[in-house]
Formats: sequence, structure tokens, C-alpha cells
Amino acid sequence: MLDTLMLGAIEAGGTKFIAAVSDQDLNLIDKISVPTTDPNQTLGKIADFFSPYSIASMGVGCFGPIDLNLSSSTYGYIESTPKLAWKDFNILGALQAQYRIPIALNTDVNVAALGELKRGAAAGEQSCIYITVGTGIGGGVVVDRQIFNGYHHPELGHIAVKRFPSDTFTGICPYHTDCLEGLASGPALAERAHQAPNKIAKDDPLWKVEAYYLAQAIVTYSLILSPAKIILGGGVMQQEHVLAMVKASVNQQLNHYIKIPEIDNYIIRPQLKNEAAIIGGFILAKDALRLE
Amino acid sequence: MLDTLMLGAIEAGGTKFIAAVSDQDLNLIDKISVPTTDPNQTLGKIADFFSPYSIASMGVGCFGPIDLNLSSSTYGYIESTPKLAWKDFNILGALQAQYRIPIALNTDVNVAALGELKRGAAAGEQSCIYITVGTGIGGGVVVDRQIFNGYHHPELGHIAVKRFPSDTFTGICPYHTDCLEGLASGPALAERAHQAPNKIAKDDPLWKVEAYYLAQAIVTYSLILSPAKIILGGGVMQQEHVLAMVKASVNQQLNHYIKIPEIDNYIIRPQLKNEAAIIGGFILAKDALRLE
Ligand SMILES: Nc1ncnc2c1ncn2[C@@H]1O[C@H](COP(=O)(O)OP(=O)(O)O)[C@@H](O)[C@H]1O
Ligand SMILES: Nc1ncnc2c1ncn2[C@@H]1O[C@H](COP(=O)(O)OP(=O)(O)O)[C@@H](O)[C@H]1O
Ligand SMILES: [Zn+2]
Ligand SMILES: [Zn+2]
Repeated sequence: MLDTLMLGAIEAGGTKFIAAVSDQDLNLIDKISVPTTDPNQTLGKIADFFSPYSIASMGVGCFGPIDLNLSSSTYGYIESTPKLAWKDFNILGALQAQYRIPIALNTDVNVAALGELKRGAAAGEQSCIYITVGTGIGGGVVVDRQIFNGYHHPELGHIAVKRFPSDTFTGICPYHTDCLEGLASGPALAERAHQAPNKIAKDDPLWKVEAYYLAQAIVTYSLILSPAKIILGGGVMQQEHVLAMVKASVNQQLNHYIKIPEIDNYIIRPQLKNEAAIIGGFILAKDALRLE
Repeated sequence: MLDTLMLGAIEAGGTKFIAAVSDQDLNLIDKISVPTTDPNQTLGKIADFFSPYSIASMGVGCFGPIDLNLSSSTYGYIESTPKLAWKDFNILGALQAQYRIPIALNTDVNVAALGELKRGAAAGEQSCIYITVGTGIGGGVVVDRQIFNGYHHPELGHIAVKRFPSDTFTGICPYHTDCLEGLASGPALAERAHQAPNKIAKDDPLWKVEAYYLAQAIVTYSLILSPAKIILGGGVMQQEHVLAMVKASVNQQLNHYIKIPEIDNYIIRPQLKNEAAIIGGFILAKDALRLE
């Protein structure tokens, strides 16, 4: 029966997996959250959740980096994650073996960016970047209303950055030490402040340093990708006062070199909050059906 | 007569304008180079060159930044150039008033990137970046075999960069002081070395600094755009030994975080040399006809 067509979505995160079922109009039918332990256990619980439903296709947003190069022998594998049980794990293969339906895989942040563009803060736009500043810093990119994948998907959080004057913090990225994520993620902030980021005083000078790095990254993305909107989410951005500091710093660092949209319409908050990747997953699932 | 259909191309550079005519198969028929003085004089000479030919359409690669946002009131204008006679000049409007044929305008480097992808070093690929390291540092981007334009076209040369350890050179970009172009363009090298870049000894430690910054930019572009090929051209890259240093530094800075194509097939020299923008211009002209 076409009118009971159901779609599946998985948001595969480093802490927890969320799985959900919707109808063909993306209305939520059921949802579950399970802790990220090892692949067998976690995917087993997800399978139990899906088993009562006959879903037609599935969209998956996964932590990464993941190999999305169709011509690669490790296509669909999780790559260099610090979560060793998942490193080099063929997540797409495992899901395909389990479900035997069309499955579209992409990164969590790309899928969230798609959700925000189609149903959230960037609705009606052609392009957007979705940045999450949390345990790591990640970014998803949508161009021409589709997820942007190059030879390798974007990894916006690991770019090198120019130092804030006087900032001597070493940085904590295991791959690059003082890349953007190494200097400005939630854990980097915690190490700088010797306390949890949500406990840092609003007038602490650290926020200026944080805003400077996030703004620098936004200027770099603007110079390279020039999206219509930049959506700034993640735990650290729950510090509401930081957004205005980021905007001011973007204007200062860009120094009018290129035109960007009016700043309050350019650097914005997410609308779908924790739902973006699941909604994006449903959209991917629906697209996967159309491509069949 | 369809078999005599002719295409026009202009490469509008800060030092000289090149104009050329080809047949519909992009075979060169005629070509001229005129110095860049003021708009009236330069475009007048270009008009004299084109007048014997009845060209059907034109593709223009122009120095920039230029406003390519169709919904902008200054669409087709040159923006923040230090060449004051051309700043805020409506080059597309001036050409359209002169020729009354379909005219496609884009940046010089975007058009060159298109030429290299369709007929040069990146032939057969879906995407490439074309970087020129000369008087300035510019970059063009082709994705899905088409020029990549966002809200504003890419301006790859002006990204902020992490300092090479011990590098204290101030930088010379009038907009950002020590952006990539400010630290690593030909004139920046000249000021660092107190001599013309082509006179700097091959074993001078400056080349290591230069290679570091170019490699850092390539890593950033790889993390954000992830193209199939990166083409490295411009006057400074005539220093043949620098390419290998850039490749080594890319591998070191990327630190295997993401997969890139095999490095010797990834970071490559241009094939079309000085012809890339003109060939790209003919391709744009031909595309503009098809879109009519
Ligand atoms: N209100 C807050 N203010 C500042 N930092 C916060 C806040 N809430 C969470 N964080 C930080 O954000 C990080 C968690 O990010 P989050 O986006 O919630 O999850 P994850 O990135 O793990 O998916 C932690 O480093 C945490 O300290
Ligand atoms: N053989 C060379 N070795 C090093 N630098 C060079 C060489 N030839 C030109 N340059 C430098 O490149 C810059 C000119 O770049 P070029 O790409 O030729 O032109 P433009 O960028 O003006 O279009 C100048 O700064 C010049 O010093
Ligand atoms: Zn990193
Ligand atoms: Zn600059």
C-alpha cells in the first residue's frame, strides 16, 4: 500500500545513535536513542527498533570522517575516528546486509545541513553551511539544494587557523594539534578554562578568543564556498552572547573584501535543533527511493 | 552561415587584456593583447580588434573580485580592486552595450579552471581548483564540470593562515595584511628576499616558508572543497623545485586525516599555460549560445 510507505533515518553519533521512522511526508512515527558502544551491540538494538516497521528506504547521517568515494574500495567505511571499535568499520555494508533496501549514507553534519536547508533555518535557499561547535567542530555543506561531496566530503572543523594575538594554548586535536577544532571545540574551551564551558563567566576574555576562531573559520568558508547562510549550532553555541561576538569579528576580519549577505541573515541559529540530522535522513531516504 | 559561427573571449587582467576569436570548435582565429590602462581606452582597443569579426557570443574572465550575484544591483561590476580606474566599473554592462550578443562573465581564475578542466590538466575530471601564485594569489573552482559560484565567487587567495614557526614577516595585503596572498604572493616573496623572486637561490630557506603556506592553503581547500585535482600555476610556480616541496608539506600538514588522491596526480602543473582563460572563455561563450 503506497499510502503506508515508511522511511527510516539513523543519526549515528559518537555518544548515541538515534533511529526514527516517518511516513512519506516526513511525519515522525517512532524514534529511539541507544548508546554508542560497539557496532554489533548498537546496530543490533537499532535493528530491534526497526523490525516492526516495513521501511522502504533509509537515510543515515554518521560521525566521520567516512569514505564516500564511490570508486574507493573502502566506500561506506568509517575512517579515522578515535572510537576504535568503529575505526575502519564498514557501516554502510553492515546496514545494507541487515536491511536490503536503498540506503543513503552521508556525514551527520551534511545530513543536518540538508535538513536545515529543506525544512529549517535555510529553507528556500540554494546553499548553506551547518557548523556544530560541540565535542568536536564539524561542518556540513549544501550547494544547489544538494549535499556537497567532493573527492572526500568536507571536513570543515580541521582547518589550520591564524592565532589570536597572545593565544598560546597548545591545542588538543590528535591529528593537527592546533587546528580549529583543536583550539575552539568544547573540550578545548574546558581545558583553557579549567572548568566546563557552560560554567565560564559570560564576560570571561576566553569568549573573545573563541569568537575570533569561529569567525575566522566563517570568513574562510565564505571566501571558499560563499554559501547563502551559515548556521551555527552545537553545545558551545548555547552561550547566547557568543553569536553577536562572532558576527562582529566576521565583519572585522573580512574587512569588506567581499560581499556577504546582511550579517544577521547570514550567520544564524539552527531551527531544527536536535532534529536536523533525522529530518535530513528522511529526506535522503525519500531521494534514494526516487533514484531507484 | 552556421559553419562560420565565431566565438569571442576576453581575459581581462590587471596588466593586460587579451582578446581572441575562435571558430565553433575552439580553434584560434585571431588574438590580441592590449595594456590595461583605463576602461575607455582598453575596451576601445578591444572593440577595434573584434570589429572585423561577427562573433555570436563572448566569454570573459576578469580580474576581481567582481559582483556575480544576479540579484545584486551591482551585478557585473568590478569590486574592490586597487586599480582605481576600474573599481566599481560595470564591465559587463560596458561590454553588453558594445556588442549586444550573449556575454558570460566570470573571474579570470574561474574561467582558467574551466579551461583546464575541459581541455587541459584536469580533462576528464568532475572538479578541480586552479591556483595562480603570481602578483596576487587567486583560485578558480570547477565542481560537477561547471564553474562554482556561490553567493559571491570564491576568493581563495585571501584566507587567513597559520604562521610558519618563526616567520615574522608582516605581510602586504592591503585588506588583511597577513592573509595567504599577503604572505606568499610574488611581491611578498620579493619583499622578504629584497630581490626579485626569480633571483632567489633554490636552496634559500624562504622556499620552505613559501611551500608551507601554499601547502596549508591546499590542505584547507582539500578539507573544504575536496576537488579531484589541484592545478598550481602562476609566475612563482615557475620555480620548478617548489612543487615537490609543496607536495611534501601537504602530506605532512594533512597528516592522513582525510584521503586525497595520490599526490602526484593531485597537485599538478597547468597544461594550457597562458591559454587557459582564453580557452575557458570560448567554452563559456559556446555555453552562453546554448542557453539562449
Ligand atoms: N550551555 C553550554 N555552554 C557552553 N558549552 C556547552 C554548553 N552545553 C554543552 N557545552 C559543551 O558542548 C560540548 C558538547 O557538544 P554537543 O553539541 O552538546 O554534543 P556533541 O558535540 O558531543 O554531539 C561539550 O564540550 C560541552 O562542554
Ligand atoms: N621564474 C620565476 N620565479 C619566481 N617568481 C617569478 C618568476 N617569474 C615571475 N615570478 C613572479 O611572479 C609574479 C608575476 O606573476 P605572473 O603569474 O607571471 O603574473 P600576474 O600574476 O601578474 O598575472 C611576480 O611577482 C614575479 O616576481
Ligand atoms: Zn584537527
Ligand atoms: Zn588579503
